[in-house]
Amino acid sequence: MEVGFLGLGIMGKAMSLNLLRHGFKVTVWNRTLSKCDELLEHGASVGSTPAEVVKKCKYTIGMLSDPSAALAVVFDKDGVLEQIGEGKCYIDMSTVDADTSSKISEEITKKGGYFLEAPVSGSKKPAEDGQLVILAAGEKTLYDEIIPAFDVMGKKSFFLGEIGNGAKMKLVVNMIMGSMLNAFSEGLVLADKSGLSQQTLLDVLDLGAMANPMFKMKGPTMLMSSYPPAFPLKHQQKDMRLALALGDENAVSMPVAAAANEAFKKARSLGLGDNDFSAVYEAIKVPEPSP
Amino acid sequence: MEVGFLGLGIMGKAMSLNLLRHGFKVTVWNRTLSKCDELLEHGASVGSTPAEVVKKCKYTIGMLSDPSAALAVVFDKDGVLEQIGEGKCYIDMSTVDADTSSKISEEITKKGGYFLEAPVSGSKKPAEDGQLVILAAGEKTLYDEIIPAFDVMGKKSFFLGEIGNGAKMKLVVNMIMGSMLNAFSEGLVLADKSGLSQQTLLDVLDLGAMANPMFKMKGPTMLMSSYPPAFPLKHQQKDMRLALALGDENAVSMPVAAAANEAFKKARSLGLGDNDFSAVYEAIKVPEPSP
Amino acid sequence: MEVGFLGLGIMGKAMSLNLLRHGFKVTVWNRTLSKCDELLEHGASVGSTPAEVVKKCKYTIGMLSDPSAALAVVFDKDGVLEQIGEGKCYIDMSTVDADTSSKISEEITKKGGYFLEAPVSGSKKPAEDGQLVILAAGEKTLYDEIIPAFDVMGKKSFFLGEIGNGAKMKLVVNMIMGSMLNAFSEGLVLADKSGLSQQTLLDVLDLGAMANPMFKMKGPTMLMSSYPPAFPLKHQQKDMRLALALGDENAVSMPVAAAANEAFKKARSLGLGDNDFSAVYEAIKVPEPSP
Amino acid sequence: MEVGFLGLGIMGKAMSLNLLRHGFKVTVWNRTLSKCDELLEHGASVGSTPAEVVKKCKYTIGMLSDPSAALAVVFDKDGVLEQIGEGKCYIDMSTVDADTSSKISEEITKKGGYFLEAPVSGSKKPAEDGQLVILAAGEKTLYDEIIPAFDVMGKKSFFLGEIGNGAKMKLVVNMIMGSMLNAFSEGLVLADKSGLSQQTLLDVLDLGAMANPMFKMKGPTMLMSSYPPAFPLKHQQKDMRLALALGDENAVSMPVAAAANEAFKKARSLGLGDNDFSAVYEAIKVPEPSP
Repeated sequence: MEVGFLGLGIMGKAMSLNLLRHGFKVTVWNRTLSKCDELLEHGASVGSTPAEVVKKCKYTIGMLSDPSAALAVVFDKDGVLEQIGEGKCYIDMSTVDADTSSKISEEITKKGGYFLEAPVSGSKKPAEDGQLVILAAGEKTLYDEIIPAFDVMGKKSFFLGEIGNGAKMKLVVNMIMGSMLNAFSEGLVLADKSGLSQQTLLDVLDLGAMANPMFKMKGPTMLMSSYPPAFPLKHQQKDMRLALALGDENAVSMPVAAAANEAFKKARSLGLGDNDFSAVYEAIKVPEPSP
Repeated sequence: MEVGFLGLGIMGKAMSLNLLRHGFKVTVWNRTLSKCDELLEHGASVGSTPAEVVKKCKYTIGMLSDPSAALAVVFDKDGVLEQIGEGKCYIDMSTVDADTSSKISEEITKKGGYFLEAPVSGSKKPAEDGQLVILAAGEKTLYDEIIPAFDVMGKKSFFLGEIGNGAKMKLVVNMIMGSMLNAFSEGLVLADKSGLSQQTLLDVLDLGAMANPMFKMKGPTMLMSSYPPAFPLKHQQKDMRLALALGDENAVSMPVAAAANEAFKKARSLGLGDNDFSAVYEAIKVPEPSP
Repeated sequence: MEVGFLGLGIMGKAMSLNLLRHGFKVTVWNRTLSKCDELLEHGASVGSTPAEVVKKCKYTIGMLSDPSAALAVVFDKDGVLEQIGEGKCYIDMSTVDADTSSKISEEITKKGGYFLEAPVSGSKKPAEDGQLVILAAGEKTLYDEIIPAFDVMGKKSFFLGEIGNGAKMKLVVNMIMGSMLNAFSEGLVLADKSGLSQQTLLDVLDLGAMANPMFKMKGPTMLMSSYPPAFPLKHQQKDMRLALALGDENAVSMPVAAAANEAFKKARSLGLGDNDFSAVYEAIKVPEPSP
Repeated sequence: MEVGFLGLGIMGKAMSLNLLRHGFKVTVWNRTLSKCDELLEHGASVGSTPAEVVKKCKYTIGMLSDPSAALAVVFDKDGVLEQIGEGKCYIDMSTVDADTSSKISEEITKKGGYFLEAPVSGSKKPAEDGQLVILAAGEKTLYDEIIPAFDVMGKKSFFLGEIGNGAKMKLVVNMIMGSMLNAFSEGLVLADKSGLSQQTLLDVLDLGAMANPMFKMKGPTMLMSSYPPAFPLKHQQKDMRLALALGDENAVSMPVAAAANEAFKKARSLGLGDNDFSAVYEAIKVPEPSP
């Protein structure tokens, strides 16, 4: 199977390498072309523009860093739109909002092409290990055809129906994640101030019904106040805001998520927006008395 | 090793059976003596009063249903206190508050006995499987001596220091649990009202970094509005209240736990106090419009 | 002084009558022209389009029902823009968001006209009594010139600086209002469930440091579950959302407003969006047990 | 009319002076007897113990600083209980919890005496001006007899029914107060960070439907970060906690009060407990970026 791949950031590089490793013919493109070199060594071809990639391949996957990059790769000069048409398929795996997704979908469909949004759950490590969870929505026939590629990049894919549902599912999941991390942080602070060992709390949690990979991974670094950004706090807070907005549209009252969102905002006001989202712990901590 | 065992409810029965199964000599007592029969068949001896059990055994374990039962078994006529003394040890594995624990500890220590509080994390199934997590505090030498029994009843035990720390650790853990369940419930409602499949949300969560046994176990029954009480909602709310009170004592601000607590109160006001604590989902759901 | 007046709803009619009563020459326009009749009787002239009014008057005031009406009256055929220009002034007293205001401001300024946004605090009664509070922003010289008209319609006007500040000030005020009404509602429910007289609570509040016209006015009707919409709940909730969004932009954490917003959403989910905003009380009340 | 008066703190002194000024014969007692001197000059008699005052007067009023002082004056040696009995009346105007009040009531009633709890709303200034609001509960006939004294000390008194209702009413009122102050603080911060003048916000609020003496009094001092304790923050937070506990008892969900309570706890954690309760504003403020 032959696929195009647009965008070779941390995620895109890992995903396209997995495709190559499993025998796919891959034509890659990246805004900074030098990033294509490593893929070349692993047997990829390189296209000089998104349009060229789409012209060459029936299926083209996009994995861009944000909504504006996702739009640019489609709508700019030499973009996807110039070559999309009857029999051509575009799969956008970037994390974008439902509006961005709809805008892309509309134009591609107008030109006779097929479109699938397919944001992923999971970051660098799962991308490298082919263990992503893929949240696809849009053209069902395209979903069925592209399954072999999804099987290589992810451990599981879901087809969620109409365009926008992939983006919405990601928001719901990230909202739960943000509230959980607040609950966890409050527990860590309470343990500490009550004279209990925080490390023991981590151990107890890890043995019980609430044990989960996130607590296991973030707990030890939080105790060291170490927050290298796997997922930046400002993005987490943006997702909380968008999830609450989605609830607003549908008259869903979510007081716990709202309280968690305000804690993330507090963390932003402390200048922690570019740290990992687990830095919300710093906003919950009781400040040390000044000397 | 010979141990006494007071209290043969769901938990106590499972725990004492595990002791017998692993070669411990066990003398049991229960308020309703007929409950001792099954243990007799498995080789236990029976004591007619708590005092008699303590007289016979160097180590006696209590597993009572609540603080008042835990106090009664110690302080009432023919209770533990009548035979406790130099060389006698009492281990209370009931879930009680720090005050109850301190009261028992004080009297036993006065008489020259040794005391350990050791509440457990885990319910019926882990008790049967010897997979409890044991949160012990009090007399360290007694903890070291009783480890063989703990190893049979639990998969892991912790020594947490001074009396009261076991109770406090349980509160912290249950507070995190209550907030998590609210986050989960809000996510389920948001998914539903946003046109997403709730079952798919469960599947996605179970594949990601937030996957945990509680979501896996409670999710499907919540979607069926089925709430047989594994842990009654009113007890969960009481633990949230006590955890918030512990935070109050130590000037720890916990807005997410506070919001979750109010949701549990809302659920109580809807008459759901005796249902499983996952019934908080009903208080978060958007009500159906009346016809 | 001669002024044009566009929009004769409940507010606009009362405001233009006050202008007439105090000797202003007023030329009115309304989408449904028959609404101009009463003003005619009081001595107003009538313009057949917004453009005609602007052509005739140096100063034209707009008081439209919502942002889309406020935009239409300016940008549609025969709208304000067609006659605005050097020496012409437009004062929009409608309640609109900062973006709408900026859009109108920009176009009018481009054509050489002067613009002031001037939303008001106060509803029907203060409008009739000339007791509005006017929150103006934009062209300072225009503000100084139009003061005589403001003095007739309001008891006080403020000049708040650049375009958008009027809208923002209204959001801040309405956010405080929404949180206060929630606090008040929670107190009323708590009093009732604690066996206290709600009427006595109203009396006690009215005698103390928290006494305010809103509690005095809304309390008695809330106790009768009567919610004729002076200010619809869905608009109040929208203002809470926009105020929280303003806080989001500026990294301001506002947990009380966030909790109040979720209560308003709950009320919307109960179908109370078109009732007065005091109907949030219904969402806070403990439901009666079903028989 | 002759009354005894126990406790001459800020409040008690002002209240007993008002009684003297209006022709009551007053016998005072205070733990530190020197505090009685000023009252002596104004014509009061002095009793050397609470018991002596009760022996001399049919009606004795207590105004102590806290529950433990209120209990001591009754139960300690030479306390009220020693002389209370048939035909003797005790009116406790201290702010205490319902439990303390019940305990005092029970013992006095057992001895044949009459008891009224009568906490007040209002602080130093209203006490001096005879403008307190009195929240009485207990013995109705005693209430009717003591009205002449209440009329001199307060502008209004309420009879609220059974013992405990006075304390509960105070909690409800203070809970609303605490939430309102949070709403106000959040609004002040939002105004500031949105580029609006905080002073203008105060002015706008003071002209509208939410205008109230508390905002008017606290606003200007808050803007100066000045918090001399009229009502200490730690006491306000304690009242929020007790009000939430009252809600807990009655299954009343109060998310806004809960969020406000957590903000007061945050303020305590910042070391602001002894400041005026308006210092919660400091916990809501966005911290200045460090240089």
